[in-house]
Amino acid sequence: MSIVVQKYGGTSVADLERIRNVAGRVARQVRAGDRVCVVLSAMAGETNKLVGFVDGLDAAGFDPAEYDMVVASGEQVTVGLLAIALRAIGVPARSFTGWQAGVETDAAHGKARIVRIDPAPVTAALEAGEVAVVAGFQGLAPNQRIATLGRGGSDTSAVAMAAALGAERCDIFTDVDGVYTTDPRIVGRARKLDRVTYEEMLEMASLGAKVLQTRSVALAMAHKVRVQVLSSFTDEPGTLVVDEDEIVEQQIVSGITYSRDEARLTVLGVRDRPGVAAAVFGPLAAAGINVDMIVQSVSRDGVLANMTFTVARNDVARARAVLAEERPRIGFEEIVANADVSKISVVGVGMRSHAGIAHTMFQCLADKGINIQAISTSEIKVSVLIEEAYTELALRSLHTAYGLDAQSPAGGD
Amino acid sequence: MSIVVQKYGGTSVADLERIRNVAGRVARQVRAGDRVCVVLSAMAGETNKLVGFVDGLDAAGFDPAEYDMVVASGEQVTVGLLAIALRAIGVPARSFTGWQAGVETDAAHGKARIVRIDPAPVTAALEAGEVAVVAGFQGLAPNQRIATLGRGGSDTSAVAMAAALGAERCDIFTDVDGVYTTDPRIVGRARKLDRVTYEEMLEMASLGAKVLQTRSVALAMAHKVRVQVLSSFTDEPGTLVVDEDEIVEQQIVSGITYSRDEARLTVLGVRDRPGVAAAVFGPLAAAGINVDMIVQSVSRDGVLANMTFTVARNDVARARAVLAEERPRIGFEEIVANADVSKISVVGVGMRSHAGIAHTMFQCLADKGINIQAISTSEIKVSVLIEEAYTELALRSLHTAYGLDAQSPAGGD
Repeated sequence: MSIVVQKYGGTSVADLERIRNVAGRVARQVRAGDRVCVVLSAMAGETNKLVGFVDGLDAAGFDPAEYDMVVASGEQVTVGLLAIALRAIGVPARSFTGWQAGVETDAAHGKARIVRIDPAPVTAALEAGEVAVVAGFQGLAPNQRIATLGRGGSDTSAVAMAAALGAERCDIFTDVDGVYTTDPRIVGRARKLDRVTYEEMLEMASLGAKVLQTRSVALAMAHKVRVQVLSSFTDEPGTLVVDEDEIVEQQIVSGITYSRDEARLTVLGVRDRPGVAAAVFGPLAAAGINVDMIVQSVSRDGVLANMTFTVARNDVARARAVLAEERPRIGFEEIVANADVSKISVVGVGMRSHAGIAHTMFQCLADKGINIQAISTSEIKVSVLIEEAYTELALRSLHTAYGLDAQSPAGGD
Repeated sequence: MSIVVQKYGGTSVADLERIRNVAGRVARQVRAGDRVCVVLSAMAGETNKLVGFVDGLDAAGFDPAEYDMVVASGEQVTVGLLAIALRAIGVPARSFTGWQAGVETDAAHGKARIVRIDPAPVTAALEAGEVAVVAGFQGLAPNQRIATLGRGGSDTSAVAMAAALGAERCDIFTDVDGVYTTDPRIVGRARKLDRVTYEEMLEMASLGAKVLQTRSVALAMAHKVRVQVLSSFTDEPGTLVVDEDEIVEQQIVSGITYSRDEARLTVLGVRDRPGVAAAVFGPLAAAGINVDMIVQSVSRDGVLANMTFTVARNDVARARAVLAEERPRIGFEEIVANADVSKISVVGVGMRSHAGIAHTMFQCLADKGINIQAISTSEIKVSVLIEEAYTELALRSLHTAYGLDAQSPAGGD
């Protein structure tokens, strides 16, 4: 008898009707012979309402432990209600808050990390034939106060619980039915992937395909927890996120993602000398601004150069201010910002053993007349920065170029 | 430096504005030099919403421990928010759930009793100069699950916390500004009492003057906790509920209460023989129906008698059904029910040493032509059942007869 962890997000438990629907889904898993541990979010909108209360007291310096006390109440409601809904259809069940489920966190209230899970209370319930319904997103800090894991932390709770229980699989139910080769709203011939590796999922998550929280994928990879992403509104199988070993016929490219969350900054006329990169990026790092793609263009005269890089769009103003303040130390002529950019990335573990992936990308974009403003690469990813207006064209062209197109468009028969 | 416990009900923390108002009130108590422990209810309406969720899953046999899990979340929100509001105005504060505050209950989920409070965590906060903000209405059951005390249990939490902390006083803030000699909406000259004894308060609470929950008064009496009832919307002093010793000049009669929650049942033509009362009231008790006033009218012929008694209005149908079923064993002609009745009670510890209190009542009612349908008495109380239409007249007449009228009507100057 194996253990399956199921996680349902806020939209899946948004009202009583949907909670009943979740209960039915859990019951089917139980009747299939599995021991089931369910991890829940708060009802959709509830956490926002609670955060709104905290913000409404406009206490800039509020104690994050108090914030946690308030917002952790949302999951307490859904776990109790699901346990009731399960018993109502004849499935023994028992709810757990984070602290009751043995979830221990560090002291970073509001964005805590899970340090340890003592699975004994949940295991005891499972062994007694009960479904364990555990509040996601929360645990107990060393000071014996309630801590939350930060927004989206329920995915992390579910994966951590699956690791602690030695679960066969962690099913993450959400409002999409899996991981696609690219955004199906843009590319009609996008295909749902049956399997994807942790590494690919990590790249995709961090590149803007918001299906799974990055932290939860990293945790799954560390503990080799098999994660399935699937819809709580259909009965289709989803996408399995697994170790590379489990994927026999590896696609060279698994997916193509895009992000419009970045902006390009160019520092014009910096002196072309050692230490200038440190002078530019040191102060940005100190201000907590993440810098992504970096291009340093060599100057024609060997004296002045330009430094181009990307930051999150909502960091642009702050980045400009930080650099303006550092101008005497850096020495530059001007800063130019451009938010009309899009980052397109090709992701696939198969790249490691296949040359020419980047070349295919560059050639494809060149064929469509799309100019590349910056390039960055990792072992399993190539990203380019292009003008935002070309986003859809680039995605569709690359999707075809890498042979990812489905036989028929998504949604067709 | 003495400890004061303050309890605020749901209407006092119904929104952020009111929570800020409560914070201001707590701050004044702190600045007066006291250590303050605050006990809170959930926001007005919130507990009903949560109970509605549970009811909406219409699981007749739901586990009350799950009900507790759901509804206990309401207080968790308000304690966190008040702690934030207090810190925002410079008052160090820390929130506690019931289990964090050391409140241990029995296993009767949904209507648990407090078994013990380990005051150490709250005492530590108070000694660190923090206001301890404790979730009322809840504690931890022996099975390590959250238990609630039943509706209105926050008063009980506050009094129990005051007893455990050895507090100087327990201030219960509510939407009325104290305990009155009678209902001021009916009797314009009703007076607010400065002090009232536990015993009187108990009789008044159980007789329908819903200012304090009966359980909390009994607990205060057992532990000699001085309780003050006062309004969270004004700055007037309220009514102190104290031991008899603390009241120097004891009024003979402290208050006059009424209840329209009862109905009269008359079983006509029962045989006048030993054991008939047991035959009538045994089955009612077995069905969980509380019987209050009882009058057995002796029959003229010595064979048949009538048995009149009162039950809660919403028990009438059930009581009739129980008795109809027992008819073969009891033997009676007919049952007559009448819901147009009102119970008027005169309460005062001074009665113990003063004869004639009941006589004053009967004479006063007779003078106004009000017929008495039943009478019951306790050591400090005389109750009569009258026709409901005479309720206001009876209250006003008795209020004057016992010399309770204020110089000027309430609300006047």
